Amino acid sequence: MTITIVGLGLIGGSLAISLRESGFAQLIIGVDNNEQHAKRAVELGIVEKIMLLEDAIVQSDIIIVATPVNSLARLVPHILDKINKNQIVVEVGSTKVNVIEAVKNHPNRGNFVAAHPMAGTEFSGPDAAIPNLFSEKVCVLCDIQSSNASALDTVKKLFIALKMNIVYLDAESHDVHTAYISHISHITSFALALTILEKERDEEKIFELAGGGFQSTVRLAKSNPDTWVPIFEQNRDNVLDVLDEHIHILSTMRSCLIKKKYDELYKMFEKANDIKRILK
Amino acid sequence: MTITIVGLGLIGGSLAISLRESGFAQLIIGVDNNEQHAKRAVELGIVEKIMLLEDAIVQSDIIIVATPVNSLARLVPHILDKINKNQIVVEVGSTKVNVIEAVKNHPNRGNFVAAHPMAGTEFSGPDAAIPNLFSEKVCVLCDIQSSNASALDTVKKLFIALKMNIVYLDAESHDVHTAYISHISHITSFALALTILEKERDEEKIFELAGGGFQSTVRLAKSNPDTWVPIFEQNRDNVLDVLDEHIHILSTMRSCLIKKKYDELYKMFEKANDIKRILK
Repeated sequence: MTITIVGLGLIGGSLAISLRESGFAQLIIGVDNNEQHAKRAVELGIVEKIMLLEDAIVQSDIIIVATPVNSLARLVPHILDKINKNQIVVEVGSTKVNVIEAVKNHPNRGNFVAAHPMAGTEFSGPDAAIPNLFSEKVCVLCDIQSSNASALDTVKKLFIALKMNIVYLDAESHDVHTAYISHISHITSFALALTILEKERDEEKIFELAGGGFQSTVRLAKSNPDTWVPIFEQNRDNVLDVLDEHIHILSTMRSCLIKKKYDELYKMFEKANDIKRILK
Repeated sequence: MTITIVGLGLIGGSLAISLRESGFAQLIIGVDNNEQHAKRAVELGIVEKIMLLEDAIVQSDIIIVATPVNSLARLVPHILDKINKNQIVVEVGSTKVNVIEAVKNHPNRGNFVAAHPMAGTEFSGPDAAIPNLFSEKVCVLCDIQSSNASALDTVKKLFIALKMNIVYLDAESHDVHTAYISHISHITSFALALTILEKERDEEKIFELAGGGFQSTVRLAKSNPDTWVPIFEQNRDNVLDVLDEHIHILSTMRSCLIKKKYDELYKMFEKANDIKRILK
């Protein structure tokens, strides 16, 4: 199988490594409009060669689009325009409604599968690509009724080859759930890092004292704005909905502190402990 | 060396394990007003025996107080009342101003050392006690000029035996810095867990979709309210100061989303990325 990966960052690069290691792909072609990333991906052995998008499409069985989500509504239809009926296009972004809307009337819609392999780290670019990023994680496939059976079957095999567990959702539900489960964690982590950078002028003390709790809550604030601003843009309404609730809860906790209502704060923490039931 | 540990939870229990393993303590006596915890600590082999506080004090070279911080201002002076001039009292709480104020005029003040071994997990009780919790972490010693040289020397040796790196701070600075670096992470994590529990009615979806980012930001929400409400009570003013800034920043990000000012959001995220310089 020859696979083209468009966008050689954390996700695209890690897909390349795992697709080769699993034996699913024999040849991986890279496409990236960032020349440095493209060059680096070859140096690292992540892709066999770099080509222009048009040339790469012609040679590929599957084209995976792993670019920032604000490019998908333009890029995916453009690629679908160029493929023949045996080729498959997969996009692996973190939001779904917009891209699926953009292709809904495309004559090659059936050759397209919208996937969200839910894995990542706070690092970015080809140097962030790692083996086994996807292993034992969830891959959401969205609106599968609009994909051809054979395209869907091939894409399922692809993610199963990466040892992912496949889950099915419609695009709207996907975007609502990821707002709760992923996007809000990122915005609060960015905000927390900024809070500390604003308030704690003594950076040496952060360095000296920061423990595991701090590290884990601000880790996501290292994430790439080029990836995340487009996600918030695409999923704006759902993120605002969760963010409003979060600010409301923080304000209620603040009010408990101001009024010294520690019993109420205790009850809120106790209720938050309920997350134990749901997480390991 | 015979050491009594008052409070056999995550911190007290883990101290017992490491003090025995390091050879620093030959006999560890446990004191806990929670009978189940006391019994469990003996079953787990964390302490050799359980005694009443008064009886334990008489037999001990060092008494370590590892109870919730709202008990310290009462408990530490009470223990100082009972010791002779060769005995040492150490408390290991997460806030310092209050307890240090409570002992400042005590005739045995010199025999007391205020320490904050900055390590923990989101679990609690004797079953949460683990080996090597403190290894390579920071231990803050506060207001050391008020402790006797010999008491201070012994306590330093104790934490060095646990492979901790010792840092010195005055009590006020300690409470300010820990508000930034630890306490705010906990309150935001509790709030984030509550947000998700409120908004995401489909708990199966949380379970199915929650990835590493989610796990790391809500992990601290599993923490024990019995430990954390007293910390927020004791460090209320500093926590409110940081919390106000945090809510302000979240509200600014919310406003960027509402007004679709994505360039501004980008600049905020880019600034938050600066945390990379400070953390590994």
